[in-house]
Amino acid sequence: MSATRYTYLGPEGTFTEAALRTLPEAATRELVPMVSVPAALDAVRNGEAAAALVPIENSVEGGVTATLDELASGEPLMIYREVLLPIAFALLVRAGTKLSDVKTVTGHPVAQPQVRNWLRAHLPDAVWESAASNADGARLVQEGRFDAAFAGEFAAATYGLEPLVTEIHDAENAETRFVLVGRPARPAAPTGVDKTSVVIWQRDDHPGALLELLQEFAVRGVNLMLLQSRPTGAGIGNYCFAIDAEGHIADRRVGEALMGLKRICPKVRFLGSYPQAGVDAPPAVAEQGPSQGRGGRTLRPGTSDAEFVDAAEWLARCQDGRA
Amino acid sequence: MSATRYTYLGPEGTFTEAALRTLPEAATRELVPMVSVPAALDAVRNGEAAAALVPIENSVEGGVTATLDELASGEPLMIYREVLLPIAFALLVRAGTKLSDVKTVTGHPVAQPQVRNWLRAHLPDAVWESAASNADGARLVQEGRFDAAFAGEFAAATYGLEPLVTEIHDAENAETRFVLVGRPARPAAPTGVDKTSVVIWQRDDHPGALLELLQEFAVRGVNLMLLQSRPTGAGIGNYCFAIDAEGHIADRRVGEALMGLKRICPKVRFLGSYPQAGVDAPPAVAEQGPSQGRGGRTLRPGTSDAEFVDAAEWLARCQDGRA
Amino acid sequence: MSATRYTYLGPEGTFTEAALRTLPEAATRELVPMVSVPAALDAVRNGEAAAALVPIENSVEGGVTATLDELASGEPLMIYREVLLPIAFALLVRAGTKLSDVKTVTGHPVAQPQVRNWLRAHLPDAVWESAASNADGARLVQEGRFDAAFAGEFAAATYGLEPLVTEIHDAENAETRFVLVGRPARPAAPTGVDKTSVVIWQRDDHPGALLELLQEFAVRGVNLMLLQSRPTGAGIGNYCFAIDAEGHIADRRVGEALMGLKRICPKVRFLGSYPQAGVDAPPAVAEQGPSQGRGGRTLRPGTSDAEFVDAAEWLARCQDGRA
Amino acid sequence: MSATRYTYLGPEGTFTEAALRTLPEAATRELVPMVSVPAALDAVRNGEAAAALVPIENSVEGGVTATLDELASGEPLMIYREVLLPIAFALLVRAGTKLSDVKTVTGHPVAQPQVRNWLRAHLPDAVWESAASNADGARLVQEGRFDAAFAGEFAAATYGLEPLVTEIHDAENAETRFVLVGRPARPAAPTGVDKTSVVIWQRDDHPGALLELLQEFAVRGVNLMLLQSRPTGAGIGNYCFAIDAEGHIADRRVGEALMGLKRICPKVRFLGSYPQAGVDAPPAVAEQGPSQGRGGRTLRPGTSDAEFVDAAEWLARCQDGRA
Repeated sequence: MSATRYTYLGPEGTFTEAALRTLPEAATRELVPMVSVPAALDAVRNGEAAAALVPIENSVEGGVTATLDELASGEPLMIYREVLLPIAFALLVRAGTKLSDVKTVTGHPVAQPQVRNWLRAHLPDAVWESAASNADGARLVQEGRFDAAFAGEFAAATYGLEPLVTEIHDAENAETRFVLVGRPARPAAPTGVDKTSVVIWQRDDHPGALLELLQEFAVRGVNLMLLQSRPTGAGIGNYCFAIDAEGHIADRRVGEALMGLKRICPKVRFLGSYPQAGVDAPPAVAEQGPSQGRGGRTLRPGTSDAEFVDAAEWLARCQDGRA
Repeated sequence: MSATRYTYLGPEGTFTEAALRTLPEAATRELVPMVSVPAALDAVRNGEAAAALVPIENSVEGGVTATLDELASGEPLMIYREVLLPIAFALLVRAGTKLSDVKTVTGHPVAQPQVRNWLRAHLPDAVWESAASNADGARLVQEGRFDAAFAGEFAAATYGLEPLVTEIHDAENAETRFVLVGRPARPAAPTGVDKTSVVIWQRDDHPGALLELLQEFAVRGVNLMLLQSRPTGAGIGNYCFAIDAEGHIADRRVGEALMGLKRICPKVRFLGSYPQAGVDAPPAVAEQGPSQGRGGRTLRPGTSDAEFVDAAEWLARCQDGRA
Repeated sequence: MSATRYTYLGPEGTFTEAALRTLPEAATRELVPMVSVPAALDAVRNGEAAAALVPIENSVEGGVTATLDELASGEPLMIYREVLLPIAFALLVRAGTKLSDVKTVTGHPVAQPQVRNWLRAHLPDAVWESAASNADGARLVQEGRFDAAFAGEFAAATYGLEPLVTEIHDAENAETRFVLVGRPARPAAPTGVDKTSVVIWQRDDHPGALLELLQEFAVRGVNLMLLQSRPTGAGIGNYCFAIDAEGHIADRRVGEALMGLKRICPKVRFLGSYPQAGVDAPPAVAEQGPSQGRGGRTLRPGTSDAEFVDAAEWLARCQDGRA
Repeated sequence: MSATRYTYLGPEGTFTEAALRTLPEAATRELVPMVSVPAALDAVRNGEAAAALVPIENSVEGGVTATLDELASGEPLMIYREVLLPIAFALLVRAGTKLSDVKTVTGHPVAQPQVRNWLRAHLPDAVWESAASNADGARLVQEGRFDAAFAGEFAAATYGLEPLVTEIHDAENAETRFVLVGRPARPAAPTGVDKTSVVIWQRDDHPGALLELLQEFAVRGVNLMLLQSRPTGAGIGNYCFAIDAEGHIADRRVGEALMGLKRICPKVRFLGSYPQAGVDAPPAVAEQGPSQGRGGRTLRPGTSDAEFVDAAEWLARCQDGRA
């Protein structure tokens, strides 16, 4: 049944599958690889899957535009959670291949800039040709079309290959961020270390208004973690912005900022509030000071839920003549 | 009884009394002149009067500091309404006095800079000495201590004097703004052309934060009409700000701005929402577009009550997974 | 010699070549296709070519990350000018192929989302496989590996194919922006309708400071035309921003904004000032009012060169005690 | 001759005279009391005096409007330096008067709110009547018209009175700020702890633009020390602003902020750069780090003179194609 099926950007043996398998619930789901991000998400939209895991951002290559554009358009979807996966490549070869034997290499186009320096240093004469995915590259090595493929080490077994070199990554801290996407639902409860994703569109008649949009966050003390412009399709110069902000839609400061955007933007799409990956949620704290967020995090003074509530009560007293 | 008594900055025959008499309800109130602004307001604080009319701002001399400081400290008071009065002086003399007879003139110190040019042109040799009030100056002329007094023409009869010259005012558009002040109460209903007054204190540890305070208004599209700094008494460099903003506390954009101030300021004192004097309230309008305020006024897009309500409903849908 | 050689993102027959040929000087240059954006730009860096034409932004797919990243890192390069090209595809087939014969189609991966709707409507059962470039796709059709390729109509002749359908583009106003990139040089003189490109890096210790960076432009009345975040390679959450601003580095307001960025950013890379493509330069205007830019464009009051000069002269007089 | 004459707000025996005598050069000047602030400043304007010392701000009563308005209008004047004087009153009486004998007290109207609490506690039944100045009140006591006067202790000798009680001040830290005002001249050299005063006018057609004016300071990291609105005389709602900013016109960040104001305001009046009173100038520092001001003060990163110079050189290199 669809409630137990998760799709992901396939094929098997990619980093996306590895990321999906870090989720505890993955053990009890049917995991179905799909040929593309749109295909993985369409399965969610039409009810064939409960959720889909797709890459959204890579620390070397940047935003995954297919994912950003799918989330920004079509039937609404929502991000349930995110997964951060360190990216290190293995050079997979058929048993017996030595480094000096490698004349042709393959891998996903996104992998190429992440191993370029390594190639220049260790295989300067090898010819690169792109594959549809890292896993697909491994398959092509298995079939003998290339001598070696860059892929996750975990893909070796699937394709009967051997990792000749491991831990290859030009950039320190290379990692990819994946999101588990489902149909719109009530966001998970705040953990104290959350993130809220939206896509906002600028008014046509108002160039240069990005500053105004950002001020809706700033005035409420909400930090931005990501701002990614995407074309709206209406021609060069027309953009929407995918934004990740610190905090949860249930946090008053975040809610008020979102309402501010909703009022001044022709369109806002809420993409979800979910725990920040790679950050431990703080222990529950019984009592909070006036400028602490959930779980005791320090916030800009005047932006905690407690202060929002106090201010609302004060306003009510003013309106009642009791201030 | 106190419910029918209004105090005002006396003595009788001042512009303050004239301003008070422009209020329709003045006809049915006992009007009691007081010797000072604090005395007029203390009568309200201790229940001896229902309200007090005091000057708050003069277009030539600026803010009336006694009034601003009384409103900012002590037992809370509230502005119920404002009155704008054009200020023109008459030169009051005893019957028979000619202009060439005038060697000494008097009046309130605030009057002096408003008639300075006229004096220079018409009575260059007359000696000025200040009186406690314009009316008091008239009394001193009546008693023969001065030859002429600057006061409102309406004061002539009270003191048995004659207006020798009228409509004296150096500045075009000279006017004084008065406020009717009472104990805290539910503000009058919005008229569509309202004003909200507050006093806000800056955080000690945060010099230069005035910009932040003003952004709380700006980001919600609330225009400021007055910003007047006053010393807090804690030494040079410590100020609070009396602010008049366009709109009513019942307007969502104003309420949200006030709550924002309440959260980031150590102290905020709400002084009331009341109709703007000198501006006709717009006719009621049956249907409002998305960015019109009460009464059909044009607002900055995204700041009308209707847009606030829409955004709040949208946020609730997002939180429910129905956006 | 290199001074007469321009490289471009090849192969021959791509939109990049078509864009390059819109430049008048292209007629007198040796035009050399390169296999990748880095290869085209490296030829400039090492002196083998005077300039390179590469795509930088597509109205459907967004920023061309290879170009953005090459401009942001490595040996400095500079944008000399930009070219806007409307993008419409032709479906190229071997002579005699009818639409109903087409079972397999190819093209560059970037072309696919731009023709998706057309495919769904006219060739719902055709199988798509990506090619390394649109021109390469045409070659594969010529070789018989696919039935049809999406490419520019101008590519048909090169590969001995016929355009079966033309003017295919899902999005109205689809266009691609290309830049002619050379080694750092004195920017071309202002035309009155110019654009300035920079890449700026945020301070590590100062998340959420994007607002501050944008205010450096806003306070000087400089509009932004593009803001594109790119990862710095230091891990998720570390970004630099490619920014296009209205105006020329020789405009005082732009120069002052750039200096402001230089002071607060750990790194700023100036990428050039050049005429905006697709906008006619205004006729020269003999006299300019105080808030007109070069060529008579209306600017925000207080931001014209004339006003900057006046203010500088006033400041000098103040410093001299002559204000 | 005028070069050796300083006027001040008289009469003799006021706090203004005491403040003037704190200036070393006062010992070698002819000190001439004047009857009013305008009279003291007119003597400077018409060349009869080299400078005038007048009060500009009191920590209890706020801005001295006569001084602010004189500086904002008429022939330009300039502030050469400021003097801070702690304000404590003595109760001056004729020899032999005991506290229980005091039935009537006098003093300047500004003194009254500063001793109100003391009066309530120690002389609850005494009747207050205002005098033209504190010194004048002392004279009236000398003449027997009042029993006691509030004035500076130093005034006792001048008027043959005795200080019955000293160190009277309701507010802790009560102090008055005076300015030494002369004709426009080259400002004194920066000391490292300076202040710059300006008066700025808002555009008529642009209500609510105060935020923009303040941003001209904020974006260059210039802190404000005072913002005082004054009516322009054109009717309620029309204001100019007297502003004190940290730093010297010779500091690049201050100069650039002033030019920004000059461009967007219809009128800006530079009132001088001078040492902050009550703050020791730092010792000269041979070498400065990138974000230190003159004398080693810590500035907001990116706002030191050294950083302005670096940025200007970088801009020049960009314009030359050498960045």
